[in-house]
Amino acid sequence: METIIGIDIGGTAIKMAMFSENQQLLDKWSIPTNSRNNGTMIPETIITSIKKKLNENGLSLSALKGIGIGVPGPVNETVVKRAVNLGWIDFPLKQIIEAALNVPVLVMNDANAAALGELWQGAASDCQSIVFATIGTGVGGGVIIDGKVLNGTNASAGEIGHIPLQTREVRVCGCGNQNCLECYGSATGMIKTMNLIAGFERVSGTKEIFDLAAQGDRQAKEAIDTTIDYLAQAFAGLINAVDPEELVIGGGVSEAGPAFLTPLQNALETYLFPEIRGKLPVRKAMMGNDAGVYGAAYQVIYARGSEEP
Amino acid sequence: METIIGIDIGGTAIKMAMFSENQQLLDKWSIPTNSRNNGTMIPETIITSIKKKLNENGLSLSALKGIGIGVPGPVNETVVKRAVNLGWIDFPLKQIIEAALNVPVLVMNDANAAALGELWQGAASDCQSIVFATIGTGVGGGVIIDGKVLNGTNASAGEIGHIPLQTREVRVCGCGNQNCLECYGSATGMIKTMNLIAGFERVSGTKEIFDLAAQGDRQAKEAIDTTIDYLAQAFAGLINAVDPEELVIGGGVSEAGPAFLTPLQNALETYLFPEIRGKLPVRKAMMGNDAGVYGAAYQVIYARGSEEP
Repeated sequence: METIIGIDIGGTAIKMAMFSENQQLLDKWSIPTNSRNNGTMIPETIITSIKKKLNENGLSLSALKGIGIGVPGPVNETVVKRAVNLGWIDFPLKQIIEAALNVPVLVMNDANAAALGELWQGAASDCQSIVFATIGTGVGGGVIIDGKVLNGTNASAGEIGHIPLQTREVRVCGCGNQNCLECYGSATGMIKTMNLIAGFERVSGTKEIFDLAAQGDRQAKEAIDTTIDYLAQAFAGLINAVDPEELVIGGGVSEAGPAFLTPLQNALETYLFPEIRGKLPVRKAMMGNDAGVYGAAYQVIYARGSEEP
Repeated sequence: METIIGIDIGGTAIKMAMFSENQQLLDKWSIPTNSRNNGTMIPETIITSIKKKLNENGLSLSALKGIGIGVPGPVNETVVKRAVNLGWIDFPLKQIIEAALNVPVLVMNDANAAALGELWQGAASDCQSIVFATIGTGVGGGVIIDGKVLNGTNASAGEIGHIPLQTREVRVCGCGNQNCLECYGSATGMIKTMNLIAGFERVSGTKEIFDLAAQGDRQAKEAIDTTIDYLAQAFAGLINAVDPEELVIGGGVSEAGPAFLTPLQNALETYLFPEIRGKLPVRKAMMGNDAGVYGAAYQVIYARGSEEP
């Protein structure tokens, strides 16, 4: 039997999953991320873990046909350009693992991997072109066109958290720019907006804000509406330009469910180009923390498929 | 010898060009657009003109291997959904011409065709992925990824004139939405901004505004800066999400040259994601009014190429 492995390298854990040639999940596990020595030991821990799991599943190394890996940073064809949490700069992850295991390795950005995971077996499994956004501490995402995730000329495609906004206040983004969507549309941004409206540190989490809004709190409602309006405006700009089949929303804030997604869809409708209005499904991501390993594996499966005649 | 024909249907003229199998221009001509009877006579005038030109060039109909047509409206796989200037609604242009000439016909939006023309033989001839914007009476454009122009789920991809802006005033767009980029970033928008700053109808064209600015006029400079800032912000949002190789700017306003493009590039730099900053060429479109016929022909050439083994 042939197998494909998908890997999602995070700051604290490395999630891994093994799939059969007919794309069924065989096994799923995780190991801690060892980021000592600028993350130089990470490849070896991955290689050891893969060999062990193949063995446990009664598979030889020759059964392994490819490995897909999502990493928290921009990736080009040769290196991981930067993964701050892991200590990597221009790190040749692909080459190290290919040399050790003698199988093709595809490395990609983790948000792009999550987008592909949703396309393969998640909220967009009936689609080929989507915009995917994760709204959590930050705002990240991926853009998939005709089944292929965009990586971009500078490995920066999908950086929808850094769509610039025109706002009355100034917030400096982690990227160094001012007033990126992430400064306002993330959980962090929503909390900041709420506390600015209140005039003091009233809340420390988005769940508090949604709970307060559910009780009729006006400040909480205003903070949610403001956040959603920024997200809707930025997403609509991108959607009017690429006209995808679906918008998929993941990340911690999406866990608020309809209290967040329904007003987001309503706000989007006011900004969408008339041809698109009423025709863009906004769906909650379904794969949760598994999206990355699934998407990383799918990237390999997709690449193998396109090589066939 | 085999030949491909590219056609660009406008409100007043239908431009046509014939290319050899090795992609060289053989002939270029135009005929008036007859939009009487809701444009129902247009296909027949095109068919007649093609037959005549083939004959003039000593070619038989069997030498014609494909026709690409750009039209001023959204196009899906089967029909021209709407072309207000021509009187078309759900018009089966492709089927009519294919039936008459027995050759494959590809119909596409004219701005998308122009984008492809620039990619094939114009300002982006060394690129595979670009954002193309035409800034004239309105703001239009096209997004090309890996050599393929995006048409979108609702035939609306490339509608970058309808990226929503957050602004202090309210301007209603031709599409029915409020504060689309086109309301502020087009020639019309710039003239309106200038006259609002002046407090009276001071100018009626963008050339006047650029001339005044060159003479040091503060109102003109402010109108240009404001317009450019809106364009830069909207373009940067899209560019941060798709990370193309190049931004190509066409349309009447681009004729102002460096007086327009240099400050646009500078403003863009402030909004671009750091990974992209300093690496995005902004080029003036080179093909002028020929971009559409070239791009329409290229779409056929590209499609034929992808059919080969």
